[in-house]
Amino acid sequence: MEEIKIFAPATVANLSCGFDVLGCCLDNVGDEMYIRKNNINQVRITRITGQDLPKETDKNVAGVAVQVLLKNLKSTLGFDIEIDKYIKPGSGIGSSAASSAGAVYAVNKLLGEPFTLKELIPFAMEGERLASGNAHADNVAPALMGGFSLVKSYQPLEVLSLPTPPQLRVVILHPLIELKTKDSRAILKENVYLKDAVNQWGNLGAFISSLYTEDYELLGRSLEDKIIEPVRSILIPFFDDLKKIALKNGALGFGISGSGPSVFAMCKGDATATHVKEAMQLFYKEKGIDFDMHQSKINTQGIKIL
Amino acid sequence: MEEIKIFAPATVANLSCGFDVLGCCLDNVGDEMYIRKNNINQVRITRITGQDLPKETDKNVAGVAVQVLLKNLKSTLGFDIEIDKYIKPGSGIGSSAASSAGAVYAVNKLLGEPFTLKELIPFAMEGERLASGNAHADNVAPALMGGFSLVKSYQPLEVLSLPTPPQLRVVILHPLIELKTKDSRAILKENVYLKDAVNQWGNLGAFISSLYTEDYELLGRSLEDKIIEPVRSILIPFFDDLKKIALKNGALGFGISGSGPSVFAMCKGDATATHVKEAMQLFYKEKGIDFDMHQSKINTQGIKIL
Repeated sequence: MEEIKIFAPATVANLSCGFDVLGCCLDNVGDEMYIRKNNINQVRITRITGQDLPKETDKNVAGVAVQVLLKNLKSTLGFDIEIDKYIKPGSGIGSSAASSAGAVYAVNKLLGEPFTLKELIPFAMEGERLASGNAHADNVAPALMGGFSLVKSYQPLEVLSLPTPPQLRVVILHPLIELKTKDSRAILKENVYLKDAVNQWGNLGAFISSLYTEDYELLGRSLEDKIIEPVRSILIPFFDDLKKIALKNGALGFGISGSGPSVFAMCKGDATATHVKEAMQLFYKEKGIDFDMHQSKINTQGIKIL
Repeated sequence: MEEIKIFAPATVANLSCGFDVLGCCLDNVGDEMYIRKNNINQVRITRITGQDLPKETDKNVAGVAVQVLLKNLKSTLGFDIEIDKYIKPGSGIGSSAASSAGAVYAVNKLLGEPFTLKELIPFAMEGERLASGNAHADNVAPALMGGFSLVKSYQPLEVLSLPTPPQLRVVILHPLIELKTKDSRAILKENVYLKDAVNQWGNLGAFISSLYTEDYELLGRSLEDKIIEPVRSILIPFFDDLKKIALKNGALGFGISGSGPSVFAMCKGDATATHVKEAMQLFYKEKGIDFDMHQSKINTQGIKIL
C-alpha cells in the first residue's frame, strides 16, 4: 500500500466526571486525511484545507506525531500528509487529536502495522503535547480505538476500552469563540478539596458501571463535575442556561466537551437527541451567538479507512 | 417473628483507589447478634461479649442506628440487642459498621421489612457517625448488601452494587495496635493535588471495569493510592515491607483496610491467598508484633440469618 485515505473522528474528552482520563469517539464529525509514501525521506504536510494551520512539519501536530513514530522505528521513510480539516481548532472536540491520531494510524497502516492501535497512543500524544503543552490521552485514545476509553494511568500509560451503550447519542454545541486548551488549563487550580475529589471518583466509578450495565439514567446522573466545570464554564456563554435547557428537554446529562468551549449533551435515542439539539439551537439563535452543532452516535470503530 | 439471630460481617472499605466510596464484604469474619422485641418500648443493649463497648443505647452504634430507624417509622416498639463481638473495634475492618448494619437489618426483618436493604443504609450510617464523627457508607453498604459497593454520591445518597469476580480472596492482617477512625481521619489533608486526584479516579475507574470483566490483574494494578496511603501507612508498623512481601508472594494488590491499622491483600484463588497469608504471618512473627489474620472469600450475600 502506497497511499491511504482516512476519516479521523472528533472526540469528547473529560465527560464531566473523568477529567484527563475519559473520552468517547464521535461518528459523523471528523477530518479527512490522505497519506502517501514519498521518495524524499521527509515527512511533509503538503496540503491543508478548511483551516489555517501550520504546514511546517515540526509545528504541525500530525507531522510531529508521525516523526516520533518513525524515530521509534528508526525509519528514514518519508510521507506526504494532506488534511481536509473539518474540525475547528480550539473547539474542544479533539481537533488536534484527530490529526495526530489519524496521521499515526495511516502511517502505521502504510508500514504494514508494526504497532497495535494501543501502541500508537503515545505517538499521537506527542501531537497533543505540541498543541496544548500537555500530552494527554483522553482524545487520541478514543479517536484511535473508538467507543469509550479510560486512561487508567499515565505512568506507565495504560488505556482501557469500555463498552458503548447502543442507544447513546451525543449533541455538541460549539459556540464560535476560540478557546485554547493551553489557556483553559491555565485557569485550573493545582489543588482540589479532598471532599470534591471523593465526589468526583464516586461519579466516575458509577459512570464506568453504567457503561457495562447500559443504565442510561445512571450514566446521566454520573455526569457531574464539581472541580473543573465551575471554573471553566465561566468561559462559555450561557453555560448554565444551556445545561438547564438540555436537561429539561430530556438529555441524560450535560457538560463541557474537553476544555471547551464546546458543550455536550448525552441523550438516549435519536428522537431525544434531535429534540435537545433543537432546543439548544433555538436558545443560542435568540442570544445571537454564532455556533456549530453536531448530533452523533458513538463511533465504536475509531478511525475509518475511506 | 419475635426474635432473630444474625451474622454481621466485617468489611474492607476504601480499597486503595476508592477512599470513602468503595467497600467489600468478608465471609468468615463477623459478629453474631440476637435481636428480639421487648414489651417496654425501649431499645436496650442487653448483652455484649468479646469486647468492652458501651451498653447505653445512645452511646452504642447499634442502639443509635435502631433508634433512628424506629423514629423514621414513628414506631414506639422496643428491642433487646445482644452482641457477640468478634470483630475488634478500631481494627479497620468495619467493626462499628457490622453492629449498626446488623442491628437495623434484624429490626427491619422483625418489623416485616418496611425497608429495602438499600433504604437501611442511612440508618446504619448514623452508627458510623457516632463511631467516627463521619457518617460514611463504605462499610455499612457492603455489610448490608454483600459483595462490592460503590457510593456514587452522598448527597443524595446513592449506592451501587457491583459484581464480584468469583476467585477473589482477601487476606487481612490486623496489627494489634488500636487506631481510632477519628484519629486516622484527622491526619488527612483537606486539599489534594489535582494530578493525584486524576491518578486516583483513573484507578477507581479501572477497578470498577475489572469487576465487570473479571480481569484480576487489572484489579490488582488498580489498587493504588497516592493520596491517603502515603499519610496513613506511617501509622502501620512495617507497612512497606508487608506490601512488598504480599506482592512478591503473588498478591494482586495490597493496601490499608478502611482507616487501618489492618491491611489487606487481594489474591486470586485460595492457594495464593494462603501463601500470601503465611508469608505475612512469618514476617510479623519475626518482628515480634502481635496480630490477627483472616483469609476470606468475598461474601456476596451480606448479613446472614443464622
